Amino acid sequence: MTTDFLFEQIKLKKSFLCIGLDTDLEKIPPHLLETDDPIFEFNKAIIDATHNLCVAYKPNIAFYEAYGLKGWKSLERTMEYLNRNHPEIFTIADAKRGDIGNTASRYAEAFFHTLNFDSITVAPYMGSDSVEPFLEYPDKHTILLALTSNTGAFDFQTKQLGDRELYKEVLTVSQSYKNSGNLMYVVGATKASFLKEIREIVPDSFLLVPGVGAQGGSLSEVCKFALNDQIGILVNSSRGILYVSKEEDFALKAQQAAEKLQSEMKTYVEKVL
Amino acid sequence: MTTDFLFEQIKLKKSFLCIGLDTDLEKIPPHLLETDDPIFEFNKAIIDATHNLCVAYKPNIAFYEAYGLKGWKSLERTMEYLNRNHPEIFTIADAKRGDIGNTASRYAEAFFHTLNFDSITVAPYMGSDSVEPFLEYPDKHTILLALTSNTGAFDFQTKQLGDRELYKEVLTVSQSYKNSGNLMYVVGATKASFLKEIREIVPDSFLLVPGVGAQGGSLSEVCKFALNDQIGILVNSSRGILYVSKEEDFALKAQQAAEKLQSEMKTYVEKVL
Repeated sequence: MTTDFLFEQIKLKKSFLCIGLDTDLEKIPPHLLETDDPIFEFNKAIIDATHNLCVAYKPNIAFYEAYGLKGWKSLERTMEYLNRNHPEIFTIADAKRGDIGNTASRYAEAFFHTLNFDSITVAPYMGSDSVEPFLEYPDKHTILLALTSNTGAFDFQTKQLGDRELYKEVLTVSQSYKNSGNLMYVVGATKASFLKEIREIVPDSFLLVPGVGAQGGSLSEVCKFALNDQIGILVNSSRGILYVSKEEDFALKAQQAAEKLQSEMKTYVEKVL
Repeated sequence: MTTDFLFEQIKLKKSFLCIGLDTDLEKIPPHLLETDDPIFEFNKAIIDATHNLCVAYKPNIAFYEAYGLKGWKSLERTMEYLNRNHPEIFTIADAKRGDIGNTASRYAEAFFHTLNFDSITVAPYMGSDSVEPFLEYPDKHTILLALTSNTGAFDFQTKQLGDRELYKEVLTVSQSYKNSGNLMYVVGATKASFLKEIREIVPDSFLLVPGVGAQGGSLSEVCKFALNDQIGILVNSSRGILYVSKEEDFALKAQQAAEKLQSEMKTYVEKVL
């Protein structure tokens, strides 16, 4: 998917919401546990109820791998369902992979080809040759970790590396990678004020912003600093949408939570248009 | 597995060899492609031929994920085979994961519990709360990336972060993490001279050393700087052992390549004893 198409979808739906599919058997409604594939059934119900309100879904790969073969099967079925029924949705493999070149190629194969995701989150620690194999795929996007929303972000990311903080060095250096036009960045919402400086380094890149809601970030703060003339951000919510109810009405409750976010986003989209 | 047990195995086998299972359908002998599960059959033959010569196996998870559900199945079967027949072998999930706390817990569950690996490689970029969930498991080990063997290592790892290079900051800061006794580190062999300074920061930690052989590192250089009184290193070889022959004799050829490395290692083990 091109970013132009993604922008069209944002305008059409008046939403830049990404829903994180962190599907957890201990948190989903108990009645689904009686089905053959509870993870897929939960995802399907969430997707059916929310796909008009969001532009992206982001399965968190750890939650599938924790269940081994069964989890991987549920992930494959979720991606088949999304690609068949909602090709207009931008899909993000939240995998945070990062390895030497020949191994990075394998991860790219796994997520861009085998599972047919539109994008994947990638860690920058191992540098250029760990990122570039992902960037080779046309119309696929590599969402590089810059500034994350967790407390550990202060261990290294915000420390001075030469003239500037490590996360700024990641933003700057990665812009020189081959096919860097396919880069997007993860920028945590818990440090919205940092977004102003980030936008100076990468004015045109899409930013994936986790940490709104459960992790404490504010949508208005994020929008104030991060919006560009293509909107340029995807704001993720996972737990705040998925787990409002554990009853039969869980999908309806998820829809209402997504609607609430979408209606806030609508104002910002209309301002940019 | 405890590091004391690992050291006992190193003394017993006079080897600190780790064999990387980067199993690639395009590189394995064509006659195996006719079997139901070529990846597992290849791994099994390699393990049968080499388990007396090495102390660790390291499946590279990307190579399994690239084949989707079938690949994950082959990985599960490989781990079942190793755990059932060779519980004395130290197993490493070369996964380079790294994510916020609740997600890191899921990856720990996937690799330490579901697949029953003894250890996993983890990326440090997201800091303490992305690493500590792995460290909670007793007798399981978290092998943190410090200095990797690829060219991209110079993008960030070797740059000055405050008073010292980023990779040294990773070594130092991670020593203060909760249960840091369960840490080991990845240190690429292509920069063996760096090992001297690394040993000053983490004198007692086990180091996983990739990059000997195909990636150009030298075993004698590594040993010169990195050995401690528990040996304290695992030297990995993947392609140099797995793919010597594409014929029926591939396992025998792999055995011979492993024997060659083991016989070099023997001298160093005997020196330490």
